Amino acid sequence: MSNKKRIVIALGGNALGNTLPEQMAAVTNTAKPIADLIEDGHEVIIVHGNGPQVGMINNAMAELYRVDKTYTPTPLSVCGAMSQAYIGYDLQNAISYELTKRGIRKPVCTLVTQVRVDGNDPAFENPTKPIGKFLSKEEAEELAAKTGDIYKEDAGRGYRRYVASPKPVEIIEAPSVEALVNAGQVVITCGGGGIPVVYEDGRLDGTGAVIDKDFASCLLAEELNADMLIILTAVEKVAINFRKENEEWLSELTPNKAKQYIAEGQFAPGSMLPKVEAAVKFAQSKIGREALITLLEKAQDGINGLTGTRVHL
Amino acid sequence: MSNKKRIVIALGGNALGNTLPEQMAAVTNTAKPIADLIEDGHEVIIVHGNGPQVGMINNAMAELYRVDKTYTPTPLSVCGAMSQAYIGYDLQNAISYELTKRGIRKPVCTLVTQVRVDGNDPAFENPTKPIGKFLSKEEAEELAAKTGDIYKEDAGRGYRRYVASPKPVEIIEAPSVEALVNAGQVVITCGGGGIPVVYEDGRLDGTGAVIDKDFASCLLAEELNADMLIILTAVEKVAINFRKENEEWLSELTPNKAKQYIAEGQFAPGSMLPKVEAAVKFAQSKIGREALITLLEKAQDGINGLTGTRVHL
Repeated sequence: MSNKKRIVIALGGNALGNTLPEQMAAVTNTAKPIADLIEDGHEVIIVHGNGPQVGMINNAMAELYRVDKTYTPTPLSVCGAMSQAYIGYDLQNAISYELTKRGIRKPVCTLVTQVRVDGNDPAFENPTKPIGKFLSKEEAEELAAKTGDIYKEDAGRGYRRYVASPKPVEIIEAPSVEALVNAGQVVITCGGGGIPVVYEDGRLDGTGAVIDKDFASCLLAEELNADMLIILTAVEKVAINFRKENEEWLSELTPNKAKQYIAEGQFAPGSMLPKVEAAVKFAQSKIGREALITLLEKAQDGINGLTGTRVHL
Repeated sequence: MSNKKRIVIALGGNALGNTLPEQMAAVTNTAKPIADLIEDGHEVIIVHGNGPQVGMINNAMAELYRVDKTYTPTPLSVCGAMSQAYIGYDLQNAISYELTKRGIRKPVCTLVTQVRVDGNDPAFENPTKPIGKFLSKEEAEELAAKTGDIYKEDAGRGYRRYVASPKPVEIIEAPSVEALVNAGQVVITCGGGGIPVVYEDGRLDGTGAVIDKDFASCLLAEELNADMLIILTAVEKVAINFRKENEEWLSELTPNKAKQYIAEGQFAPGSMLPKVEAAVKFAQSKIGREALITLLEKAQDGINGLTGTRVHL
């Protein structure tokens, strides 16, 4: 049927929780609206964040190194890979269970996914994302010397590692995602925005960075020729004049209008701004492509044009 | 061509090393003989062990819990999931690099893979596999009370956790592996024998166990209707009267002959015995299926009938 879409859906942080028990509980709720879309016949590809999870794994590996120098510090890219399996394992089982309860037998799987970034991306000049625990000056200096990573003093609370957030350039495993989707399967991919890698002399190498999951989802949606990119967030629609007297919730947004609002500073950096930017990039990449920004539990209504902010040419 | 086979290959522990730098070095060597098989036109599915790696992750998560009670102890199944991504990420890139050098463009990907076991498997009555660090009696008792896991005193060196090694019953992600292989891709799957799960009321739940990777490989090869199962080990051929005066290296082995040798106690439990058992199980599952036990660097010769121990009806 013509209203069956290929959809890339980018889950927000609250879809997963911060600890293992929280994650187990959160994915149970997250699975239901996702199963609704699958039950409606859409092809669904799922991307999720990994901030707290990769932080947890990064801290665990750092503790191991602290007590046992048999090991070397674990690169952030490796921690990111681990977080993809940690999250995907729980999320795929929650979705499978929800589908099974509805009598739908459909494989749901998790693919370790690398996303290529440009080693010359200007973001590497100015790492802006703090990760991991606060450290003493001595600890930070020891690790910096050992690893070459960058540590900065953070608001008087100690030293933290800072990493860059470069733009995604290529989803390395897109052909594998495509093969699975074409076989009628549900795929969890690009977890945490993907494992950031650079390409040099025919080789992919992990790099200490964090890729915005909304930008990674946008690129994935383009590479898979998806019909729709759904970016989930904590509000039902995008607003201009957010939390002001003249606040206005937007049901439709064209790329041109969005760019005007962006220039006006309507959207908060690190929050709604990257979501709107990713939605605009997808919407203007091809006639007929649509991005939707809404709440997870409103995704189904949003696809049917009943709510959310729809971004299209 | 008729001599192109679908091959499941089970890598031994020495294919990966014990730490991150060792793994980086080991996968470079491991990739070459695997790339040879791919270059020869075979469909290759790769399974690997994860003993040292899941031990490392398990220790890291235990350290995190020790210093930060915000977290709960991390189940072994979750550590196993993490180890699949940790190993697969390095291994797939090493194989991709080796293929790229040879001018072969072929996706190589890693799938988080669960393997179902029977919750009533008698192995659960008597956990035999020690994992993780040695602990004091007090630490072991605290964790046992918190998690319900089993800790035993180990040869006067302290307390360790013991887990069961049940038989694999079903490869949950076999349809996903199949879709990828059918699309011409190389798949790394069932890492560490797979994440052990039990099925109850429509739900898959992780269980604290370790699945033998050779048995998991055998089951996977059966489910994928593979032509060949290659079990790699530290010797070129299987021997009877191993290290005795009348030692005899075997080039061919039928299931019946193998069972006779097993009854004689020719193969060491926990070492060659499970490999021969897995090979026999695969060989007798269908006419024409063949298992090969040999060294990684002899795999290509073994496929061509030049070396190794070939097990078939």
